[in-house]
Amino acid sequence: MKYPKDRVYIHEVVTRDGFQNEATFIPTDEKISLINRLGRCGVAKIEVTSFTSPKAIPALRDAEAVMQQIERSPDVVYTVLVPNIRGAERALSCQPNEVNLVMSTSESHNLANLRMGRDASFSQLADVIRLVRQTSVAINVSLSTAFGCPMEGDVSPAEVCKWAERFADLGVQGLTICDTTGMAYPAQVSHLLGDMRHRFPSLELTAHFHNTRGMALANSIAAMEVGIRRFDASLGGLGGCPYAPGATGNVCTEDLVHMFELNGANTGVDQHALLDVAGMLRAIVMRDTPGQVLKAGMRLDLHPLPAHVAQALALRREHL
Amino acid sequence: MKYPKDRVYIHEVVTRDGFQNEATFIPTDEKISLINRLGRCGVAKIEVTSFTSPKAIPALRDAEAVMQQIERSPDVVYTVLVPNIRGAERALSCQPNEVNLVMSTSESHNLANLRMGRDASFSQLADVIRLVRQTSVAINVSLSTAFGCPMEGDVSPAEVCKWAERFADLGVQGLTICDTTGMAYPAQVSHLLGDMRHRFPSLELTAHFHNTRGMALANSIAAMEVGIRRFDASLGGLGGCPYAPGATGNVCTEDLVHMFELNGANTGVDQHALLDVAGMLRAIVMRDTPGQVLKAGMRLDLHPLPAHVAQALALRREHL
Repeated sequence: MKYPKDRVYIHEVVTRDGFQNEATFIPTDEKISLINRLGRCGVAKIEVTSFTSPKAIPALRDAEAVMQQIERSPDVVYTVLVPNIRGAERALSCQPNEVNLVMSTSESHNLANLRMGRDASFSQLADVIRLVRQTSVAINVSLSTAFGCPMEGDVSPAEVCKWAERFADLGVQGLTICDTTGMAYPAQVSHLLGDMRHRFPSLELTAHFHNTRGMALANSIAAMEVGIRRFDASLGGLGGCPYAPGATGNVCTEDLVHMFELNGANTGVDQHALLDVAGMLRAIVMRDTPGQVLKAGMRLDLHPLPAHVAQALALRREHL
Repeated sequence: MKYPKDRVYIHEVVTRDGFQNEATFIPTDEKISLINRLGRCGVAKIEVTSFTSPKAIPALRDAEAVMQQIERSPDVVYTVLVPNIRGAERALSCQPNEVNLVMSTSESHNLANLRMGRDASFSQLADVIRLVRQTSVAINVSLSTAFGCPMEGDVSPAEVCKWAERFADLGVQGLTICDTTGMAYPAQVSHLLGDMRHRFPSLELTAHFHNTRGMALANSIAAMEVGIRRFDASLGGLGGCPYAPGATGNVCTEDLVHMFELNGANTGVDQHALLDVAGMLRAIVMRDTPGQVLKAGMRLDLHPLPAHVAQALALRREHL
């Protein structure tokens, strides 16, 4: 057995899901430097960028430059988001290990976000899948709003599984089940992801949580308990949700790794190195990030004894 | 059976644990008004104030005035923190339903926080217990740093159970197991609290978590799963920890209730009323509070369809 039973794979999405939501453009060389450092931390996958139209998401208009200049670690899967055939062609010219396609399981959210219905999205992504399957590049599909839609409310597990099934039939390798706007709760996560693990045993399933309502770590434990071993996370907890201004973003990578490691899982991540990169990220975005461990320190980063306590203990030792 | 199986009891501590950490004095009438409104939300217990020396904690120097002027709901247990005999006498003159005593399970933290060793604390609290047992007032003991000490690191479960045992022998009704500086993690919570539930079946056990490293909700689920049904929580997530400046405070009441109710538990709390009071708290402390649900809304507080989506859906309906 290559890994212990509880090996957990961390997929870092900050340079795509995080930076996509930043108001100011992060310079290309800062993106590259961040990705290079993340690649040395032990994360299993990095979602580098998105090959969407530079007009639609100017924050990621340097997708080619970033992909061409980053160092590639042989232990990291470099994935890129691809919305359509044009994006797929651009992406494939940059040798990603994987492309990540995305659509919503809720009609309203797909219309709001991608400006077309789900059937149109599926058909477009099916074309992309046929194109990419002619190469050796892996294919993952992210299903948005799988735990709830901010406009429609609950999305039924049957609906989520229907779209999962359709993509499985097209031969994709992985599915990411996304809590796009932080509506998931632990019991729901257990039910949906537990069920999906049994239905799709040969697919790599990834959980993607947002901390919008504070439950991202609790949901991650719930997912872990039903056998999910792959987690999207964003350094510093960057990334956001236009429906919840002021709310926190994706589950924070360093907080997730800290909890999983304490709980006995093996993430393969060097936590000190990761916290250093999280500190660098804070400098790049020039503001505090939502992550907690960067502020509070790791659980066993101990504090010195206050002077009066040290004195009291010394006095006691003298008199023993 | 008076309550369904998964009845959960919320103990609100914001006016004690939260306000104790506030830099500016909260006016007495604002405290009273907040407590009165909390008493109508369905929380099971309110830790109203602390009868410590007004010099040590000036923020709570109005303990008598607050206790004498609040409205008492018959469904709420009004508890007060008591450090010593002098505090107990002051507290008993104000007719609390319960007194809450506190000491640390770690020697360094007890020395730092209470300026005496654990044995001295225990002996002082034993005197208080003897005094209070002559009345009909209930007694709870909060054991601090039970999941770790910021200066010593891990505190062994055996150490925690030793102090729990000593207080149980003195006839207290309840024990609160406190993660004073946010060092608890889910697997640890399951082990310690699962074990303590079996060792102390006749005691009311309460979990007290801080969100210092983001794990408070995950830890609450873990506690719930091993049968804990009583939870301290602080409105807005107020309350803090001097060892982690900038870190968040106690587990946030409205976020905890929101998660528990989604997960199928019955907290007895009116969430809309609670969120109103959380909004009032934000006005009282005149700053943003760490709670997430107040910012993001409850999970099913839905958003209107964007205009282009509403238009697309209307068009589609016309052509069906």
